[in-house]
Amino acid sequence: MYVHQTKVRVRYGETDQMGYLYYGNYALYYEVGRVEMLRALGMTYRMMEEELKVMMPVMTLNVRYTRPVFYDDLITVQTTIKEIPERSIIFHMELFNESGKLVNGGTVKLGFIDAVEKKRIDAPASFVEKLIPFFEQNEK
Amino acid sequence: MYVHQTKVRVRYGETDQMGYLYYGNYALYYEVGRVEMLRALGMTYRMMEEELKVMMPVMTLNVRYTRPVFYDDLITVQTTIKEIPERSIIFHMELFNESGKLVNGGTVKLGFIDAVEKKRIDAPASFVEKLIPFFEQNEK
Amino acid sequence: MYVHQTKVRVRYGETDQMGYLYYGNYALYYEVGRVEMLRALGMTYRMMEEELKVMMPVMTLNVRYTRPVFYDDLITVQTTIKEIPERSIIFHMELFNESGKLVNGGTVKLGFIDAVEKKRIDAPASFVEKLIPFFEQNEK
Amino acid sequence: MYVHQTKVRVRYGETDQMGYLYYGNYALYYEVGRVEMLRALGMTYRMMEEELKVMMPVMTLNVRYTRPVFYDDLITVQTTIKEIPERSIIFHMELFNESGKLVNGGTVKLGFIDAVEKKRIDAPASFVEKLIPFFEQNEK
Repeated sequence: MYVHQTKVRVRYGETDQMGYLYYGNYALYYEVGRVEMLRALGMTYRMMEEELKVMMPVMTLNVRYTRPVFYDDLITVQTTIKEIPERSIIFHMELFNESGKLVNGGTVKLGFIDAVEKKRIDAPASFVEKLIPFFEQNEK
Repeated sequence: MYVHQTKVRVRYGETDQMGYLYYGNYALYYEVGRVEMLRALGMTYRMMEEELKVMMPVMTLNVRYTRPVFYDDLITVQTTIKEIPERSIIFHMELFNESGKLVNGGTVKLGFIDAVEKKRIDAPASFVEKLIPFFEQNEK
Repeated sequence: MYVHQTKVRVRYGETDQMGYLYYGNYALYYEVGRVEMLRALGMTYRMMEEELKVMMPVMTLNVRYTRPVFYDDLITVQTTIKEIPERSIIFHMELFNESGKLVNGGTVKLGFIDAVEKKRIDAPASFVEKLIPFFEQNEK
Repeated sequence: MYVHQTKVRVRYGETDQMGYLYYGNYALYYEVGRVEMLRALGMTYRMMEEELKVMMPVMTLNVRYTRPVFYDDLITVQTTIKEIPERSIIFHMELFNESGKLVNGGTVKLGFIDAVEKKRIDAPASFVEKLIPFFEQNEK
């Protein structure tokens, strides 16, 4: 299991007239979560597209809105990978507010596409290798 | 069962560098679907907030991305209500491209909040009444 | 001079907690205005990118916010071209609410880029030809 | 003169299919710039709305797009106040990429609204007082 945390501050333009973070904008925070997780692992999604020529389109998104999130809240975005990715990868997301309360949870499943051949492939080996150490540790 | 269709054209600012409609922007299209469904029923979400003082926060969102959606595509957003709302309402969403192919499907569950008392309530009677005829017809 | 009008309905996700259309989202409406103007002329921006291999990056944007715009307002987006484009094109934008009041005005200046050579070019001849008739008419 | 810098990382959902940061999304970065400037001064825009009951609607926005900004770029957002605000405030914005090159510049002019009385007011004294020291220093 690999767990990563990063922080995102709610922008005014991301709220709606109910005064909440708009329900569609959580997807942007989930994106920040997985992108910063990759960076912490020593690779970037940009590198994945530009060097490995691999794109990762989203296949499914599930979101549970537990508590409202407000303008200027500093949200902790926690991203967890529970299984070594093969044909696809699932990011488990949990968002916490400044009081440490869970405000939102969800999952995002992404596939891997060879950008040149335009066909689905397995998770790139160079990516899987970065993750393996965290899973071996957990199994002991 | 009540089924409603409306159309949304994909904006340039809604695509991402993969050349697809960004996965977080489908939530905006789902919003257009349910808002236009309400309007077709003779009420507006604006009226709900301003006159009935009822807000409808989203509780859960589930999205399946079946086929990519591209810039300038004219998407048919089909919104279906399968059950008379009580404590919450579920909108079943299906998006079709210009070839009539299903590109995306999902569900959105919303609650009802009394904006003055700030507490959860059942679906407003005036809203339920508009829906009932469509369900009686289907039962015959 | 060429004048074109189209309509855009304000989405909930485009408002902010002030209850207004967020100031950054007018750029999306301006985009809809110029895209629908092109379509009315018999060409699309998509065609421009895909067939002519011409991209039109924005060079400058100027916006004056005259009156607030609210959720669910049906906004008339009026796009005017006052001069035949050469090295760049200027779209003059005016937004009106349902009472016909001017709520917003601005200009967007775009250049033309050869997407293959990655260099600036003049407005494509096939585009300029579509515009010329409207300017000849006005001069008479 | 008061100058402040903060950093913003370009999100995937903020790019468009040209592969650039979408021209409308710079407004979000400008917002981050002025909000973080306020925070550095010891006040927040949230506090302004909630405690002082002052809203700051945008009156004009001007943007010059100098160089393209790409996905995952870490942008330095520099915000400058050149004059003590009275009836309105002007934020001068400059965005730099990781090579230190200017990629974008602009100005945003905002007014001050008494949220209770719904009428225009001057810049709140408590805000002006925070800025004054920086201007006295510069005048020497």
